[in-house]
Amino acid sequence: MSDIKRVVLAYSGGLDTSVILKWLKETYQCEVVTFTADLGQGEELEPARAKAKLMGIKDEHIFIDDLREEFVKDYVFPMMRSNALYEGLYLLGTSIARPLIAKRQIEIAKMVGADAVSHGATGKGNDQVRFELGYYALAPDIKVIAPWREWDLTSRTRLIEYAEQHQIPVPKDKRGESPFSTDANLLHTSSEGKVLEDPWDEVPDYVYSRTDNPEDAPDTPEVITIDFERGDGVAINGEALSPAMLLTKLNELGKRHGIGRLDLVENRYVGMKSRGMYETPGGTIYHLAHRGIEQITLDRGAAHLKDELAPRYAELIYNGFWFSPEREMLQAAIDYSQEKVTGTVRLKLYKGSVIVTGRKSPYTLYSEKVVTFEDDAGAYDQRDAAGFIKLNALRLRLLGRRDGR
Amino acid sequence: MSDIKRVVLAYSGGLDTSVILKWLKETYQCEVVTFTADLGQGEELEPARAKAKLMGIKDEHIFIDDLREEFVKDYVFPMMRSNALYEGLYLLGTSIARPLIAKRQIEIAKMVGADAVSHGATGKGNDQVRFELGYYALAPDIKVIAPWREWDLTSRTRLIEYAEQHQIPVPKDKRGESPFSTDANLLHTSSEGKVLEDPWDEVPDYVYSRTDNPEDAPDTPEVITIDFERGDGVAINGEALSPAMLLTKLNELGKRHGIGRLDLVENRYVGMKSRGMYETPGGTIYHLAHRGIEQITLDRGAAHLKDELAPRYAELIYNGFWFSPEREMLQAAIDYSQEKVTGTVRLKLYKGSVIVTGRKSPYTLYSEKVVTFEDDAGAYDQRDAAGFIKLNALRLRLLGRRDGR
Amino acid sequence: MSDIKRVVLAYSGGLDTSVILKWLKETYQCEVVTFTADLGQGEELEPARAKAKLMGIKDEHIFIDDLREEFVKDYVFPMMRSNALYEGLYLLGTSIARPLIAKRQIEIAKMVGADAVSHGATGKGNDQVRFELGYYALAPDIKVIAPWREWDLTSRTRLIEYAEQHQIPVPKDKRGESPFSTDANLLHTSSEGKVLEDPWDEVPDYVYSRTDNPEDAPDTPEVITIDFERGDGVAINGEALSPAMLLTKLNELGKRHGIGRLDLVENRYVGMKSRGMYETPGGTIYHLAHRGIEQITLDRGAAHLKDELAPRYAELIYNGFWFSPEREMLQAAIDYSQEKVTGTVRLKLYKGSVIVTGRKSPYTLYSEKVVTFEDDAGAYDQRDAAGFIKLNALRLRLLGRRDGR
Amino acid sequence: MSDIKRVVLAYSGGLDTSVILKWLKETYQCEVVTFTADLGQGEELEPARAKAKLMGIKDEHIFIDDLREEFVKDYVFPMMRSNALYEGLYLLGTSIARPLIAKRQIEIAKMVGADAVSHGATGKGNDQVRFELGYYALAPDIKVIAPWREWDLTSRTRLIEYAEQHQIPVPKDKRGESPFSTDANLLHTSSEGKVLEDPWDEVPDYVYSRTDNPEDAPDTPEVITIDFERGDGVAINGEALSPAMLLTKLNELGKRHGIGRLDLVENRYVGMKSRGMYETPGGTIYHLAHRGIEQITLDRGAAHLKDELAPRYAELIYNGFWFSPEREMLQAAIDYSQEKVTGTVRLKLYKGSVIVTGRKSPYTLYSEKVVTFEDDAGAYDQRDAAGFIKLNALRLRLLGRRDGR
Repeated sequence: MSDIKRVVLAYSGGLDTSVILKWLKETYQCEVVTFTADLGQGEELEPARAKAKLMGIKDEHIFIDDLREEFVKDYVFPMMRSNALYEGLYLLGTSIARPLIAKRQIEIAKMVGADAVSHGATGKGNDQVRFELGYYALAPDIKVIAPWREWDLTSRTRLIEYAEQHQIPVPKDKRGESPFSTDANLLHTSSEGKVLEDPWDEVPDYVYSRTDNPEDAPDTPEVITIDFERGDGVAINGEALSPAMLLTKLNELGKRHGIGRLDLVENRYVGMKSRGMYETPGGTIYHLAHRGIEQITLDRGAAHLKDELAPRYAELIYNGFWFSPEREMLQAAIDYSQEKVTGTVRLKLYKGSVIVTGRKSPYTLYSEKVVTFEDDAGAYDQRDAAGFIKLNALRLRLLGRRDGR
Repeated sequence: MSDIKRVVLAYSGGLDTSVILKWLKETYQCEVVTFTADLGQGEELEPARAKAKLMGIKDEHIFIDDLREEFVKDYVFPMMRSNALYEGLYLLGTSIARPLIAKRQIEIAKMVGADAVSHGATGKGNDQVRFELGYYALAPDIKVIAPWREWDLTSRTRLIEYAEQHQIPVPKDKRGESPFSTDANLLHTSSEGKVLEDPWDEVPDYVYSRTDNPEDAPDTPEVITIDFERGDGVAINGEALSPAMLLTKLNELGKRHGIGRLDLVENRYVGMKSRGMYETPGGTIYHLAHRGIEQITLDRGAAHLKDELAPRYAELIYNGFWFSPEREMLQAAIDYSQEKVTGTVRLKLYKGSVIVTGRKSPYTLYSEKVVTFEDDAGAYDQRDAAGFIKLNALRLRLLGRRDGR
Repeated sequence: MSDIKRVVLAYSGGLDTSVILKWLKETYQCEVVTFTADLGQGEELEPARAKAKLMGIKDEHIFIDDLREEFVKDYVFPMMRSNALYEGLYLLGTSIARPLIAKRQIEIAKMVGADAVSHGATGKGNDQVRFELGYYALAPDIKVIAPWREWDLTSRTRLIEYAEQHQIPVPKDKRGESPFSTDANLLHTSSEGKVLEDPWDEVPDYVYSRTDNPEDAPDTPEVITIDFERGDGVAINGEALSPAMLLTKLNELGKRHGIGRLDLVENRYVGMKSRGMYETPGGTIYHLAHRGIEQITLDRGAAHLKDELAPRYAELIYNGFWFSPEREMLQAAIDYSQEKVTGTVRLKLYKGSVIVTGRKSPYTLYSEKVVTFEDDAGAYDQRDAAGFIKLNALRLRLLGRRDGR
Repeated sequence: MSDIKRVVLAYSGGLDTSVILKWLKETYQCEVVTFTADLGQGEELEPARAKAKLMGIKDEHIFIDDLREEFVKDYVFPMMRSNALYEGLYLLGTSIARPLIAKRQIEIAKMVGADAVSHGATGKGNDQVRFELGYYALAPDIKVIAPWREWDLTSRTRLIEYAEQHQIPVPKDKRGESPFSTDANLLHTSSEGKVLEDPWDEVPDYVYSRTDNPEDAPDTPEVITIDFERGDGVAINGEALSPAMLLTKLNELGKRHGIGRLDLVENRYVGMKSRGMYETPGGTIYHLAHRGIEQITLDRGAAHLKDELAPRYAELIYNGFWFSPEREMLQAAIDYSQEKVTGTVRLKLYKGSVIVTGRKSPYTLYSEKVVTFEDDAGAYDQRDAAGFIKLNALRLRLLGRRDGR
């Protein structure tokens, strides 16, 4: 049926990708190589290895990688430098993980001489786009198999039938329809589908998994500090931490205080609106802290340019264009601005909210001497403002004379 | 000394503008017309009338206007349609009030045949720019007197001396230096100066005046709904309210739940960084609600264009360019998008945080039929995604072949 | 094979769309309604009627419309108000015609109760996208038939065989492969393909059809004037002309002087680069004249905002998003700016070049009094510049002190 | 009168800056250090040295530098990489020279221990801003003296009187008012003032100095090639040339063929409109050639992002913000894109016009195989376009269903 010989599958060890594994073998008569990544989703990976073996994958064709540090250092942090929020609110937790998975999958494909890659994303979502744009950018001639767009296992019943026919174990809780589906990594957990499909209905409590209910959070605020160096977080409360450890620690703090819940109706790249619920506990704290340290270390021109570029940058990541020249160009501009974004931010965490309460830096551009209401010893000549206003007003005056509002 | 005959002063009735009133008469030997506006700052205006009279202003030269409805309807709401946030966080509460004051001041100047206007803003701040750009845009040949840039009453001591020499009553609490200064209107209260001047120091509790401390807020969340029509709020919990009444009601709700506090270091248009504390209780709720209703009623293309234009639009308002062609052009684009931004948003208010928990609209673009994980009866053909991705990837593949990452 | 009953075909009367006409009938067993538009392509339309009749189309199903005035007034002129240039150079002559064709086709489909529309654009080009996005935006449930993506007549030989089998007359010059293909309307003629496919090879002389070779153009420059009202051209050399007549006249002038040739390699929306040769004689003159009149009538803020929005606006038109909220939002902003874009521009045409040599307007914002090197009688106080510079420099000085370049 | 001890003056050797030299000494009782730069303005510099000596400047305080290579390599070329055009048309010839002069002046100030710098730009123009923003960015605490904003020599008569009183030689042609003023460097010559002040009047022939009249240019076109490497020109007609030599050669070619004349009314940063005439012979050719090579070597995403950033970038340079973080951020993005902008462009020069007629590159992204009308052997699957269009149309269809246009 095809000339595909070996395919690298992004394999979670769950029911769906196990069915895909089998289906690929059957349909394409090809070898399957499994790739399972630890991106901080909070699941054991060894069961995935055992399951792959059980399904006949050779030892040397089972790849299990801990990518947590790479994920935070090379994907989450660069993105956070931009202050990107998709549609004003969303911290892009799913979007930012996809390019790394794609990249590693292609590396493995090259290592094992595979001619194809496959993933378990559906045909309605953004993830298929993100995976495949990544594949094609990094391996332009790779073949891509997207089973959900190809097969006829289009209902859960048929999927389970197929699993049973092929001796794939079906966990009890997967027998019925799941009330919602989730994706998780070190940055966030997203939930969507079924019980969330009416955007007027409140998200049920049982959907939340990464954050405590703000109403159950401690009655006393917790104050923390985050240290930044060149735009990236390096320590919490003075304790130096690696990127992944820092985000892990912030996740614990955010969880405890009910921080980072977002109920959103967003616009998918494939053209429809969808409703998702996102929990980004540590990322929400980090995002605000980064803005806090930029407030005193970034020049206005740089800050405003960043703000104008951020929606575009966010859109590129959301749409799957991480590996594109335009994302990289924006990154070059953003990174250029971060050289002196170094210092400490203090934040208060309390029942769902994060507030920056202080920031300091050896590179601060804030000058008490200039801004003070008190005598500034000539640091600023108020009369300069007259000329400043006069020249800024000149074109408006010429216009006013013409148009006589 | 000058040829100024009659000047319209933006007069609060407070010590500073009373000194200005006197100083203008003395310095320019001119008539002074006072203009006091109710923008919802929460102060009685009649004392300002009495004080003006006391200082010798003729009855017909004392103007006291309730501008609350105009303020919200023609300034706050149009701005809110844009979702503008200055430097990602600030709801522009001071900035948006200035053009209305300037406009009314010019109207009065034309009515009374004044040849000059005057204001009490200092030479270091943004407000002088906002007032004066407004004046010049609307009356290109008006003369502008900015006493703080001209006189030598540069310390509080000398100001008070001047007041006493001229029989201007000095309230007891104005004798010493104020630990901070504030500006208030229906949208927000801002505080800055002195005790806030070190951006590492936490804002002291006594600075807050418009919001209860989240820690003292009710232990039970409050759920409300806001109805929108064509992009503007029209009702709370189903009760129709005028613009100003709606914002007033939201302010009460926000105050009670400790919502809308912001500690910010921002970049002033005049070139320095300053630290401010803003309380925008109702505006914070409104802003998120507006985003909520847009999520289901605005097309992606419109929404993303708005997001890209918003930082520029916010900057224009912050810098004082409300009455400029470029702000008006952006407003035309934004307003065009709001035709169907109609519907209801449900929000939960709790100890400092606002969460949108539902939204519905007769004009919703959200289609459960298209997005569903279930059978969609052909509303969306998943195979289309393959072609969509292939063509979006084509340029990246050509690039990948050339550059061989 | 399908449930299509009646299809409206964009029909030129040429060989390709005649084959499509036949193929639609055969393949879909449906009625075909032909629509032929005069957009100023310079061809007689009656032969298209005769040919349609010959192929069995009922009289009442043959639509032939002169859309030239609508084309220029509602498509070309609004676009020209933006100064849009795709990729810095291209005046979008093909792109801007497509939405009008799509719109009229849908109107006819509604009139005749058709359930489908069809066009003759290939599967590699932009035009299929432009047509179909237009169709879908205006009639979301219409069926679209794109024969070139469906059939197997993929070589010219097979197409001609099919024509001969079905008694479709094949003109002699269509027997062999054409050395290039063209598209024409009142704004431009584009040529691409075959002899143009190597972007290093010079465009052969015989490809040009709308412009004389600059080397053969008159040795004496011709000076003309164009009058504008509210952003649109209304007269040439003082003679009032309708939109289409004005563009026709400019085309004659441009042709004679060899104006408007462009050899371009551009990026198609479908992902590849293509090389085209465009001749836009009148449009090139008009574009520069419009810039000329804006120079004195448009405020800087408006002009710069327009310049920043123009690349996006051009991209939207090129990609086929004329009927999209974001294009319409940008149009609202652009149109807002044109209220006073009224006046006269003088241009010199000479051997391929157009130079604006003068512009005047009752609404000019140019003030000789302000700008003059001579004594300006106090219109501008040079000392204001000191303050203007000082405050603009403040942030750079604070930065310089920190970073010590 | 002041505490200035030593000032570095940007000194041309002409009458105006000689008067300034004298005036500085008299007014500030300070030492004057002269700095004269060769930026390719086409004037001998040694007379400036002689004149400075004559006016009592010490040998070691006379600086004369040939900055032509630095000017083109570090200023003109980086700017040209962006394709920047101010207000759509102007190649920024004056603007781009100012930061280099400011930078060198500050270097000299540091070398000689000067505490101030001075320039001869007037208080109405942009150059004062460009110089001074450069000074302040590079030496935040330098004192700046702008004689034209300070002195009372505000008419030519008084200036000449002053010169005569102080034994400054007044050239005969400077006795009367000049009919226009010019600025020149290797990139361009600008002319403005007096005879150009009415924007309706045609620029008189005698104003042009850098380009032959197109009508007098050769009757035969000249075809040339330019080679680019990483975004910068490196050779003409195959002959390798340094940056300044390359631009010099292009200037000769452009001059001969009457290329690069621009009559413009532009918006100055200081708020008024002014009319200028620019001659940029070589730069005009270079600009189009750079676009030509980018057409085949730059990805669409990169190209469109560049086009969107270019107006802002141009504005920054025009306004004098070369040494600003935001210009440098944009430069980082632009430079990132130029890695593979390497290859050869062929152009035809003829009587005022430049046409790109071919381009080729070892890194071309143009793929004849993909784009061809002929059989492409599967390089592109036309059916993919259906899905591409369907998903791009989805949101427009949902919108159409709601709004029923």
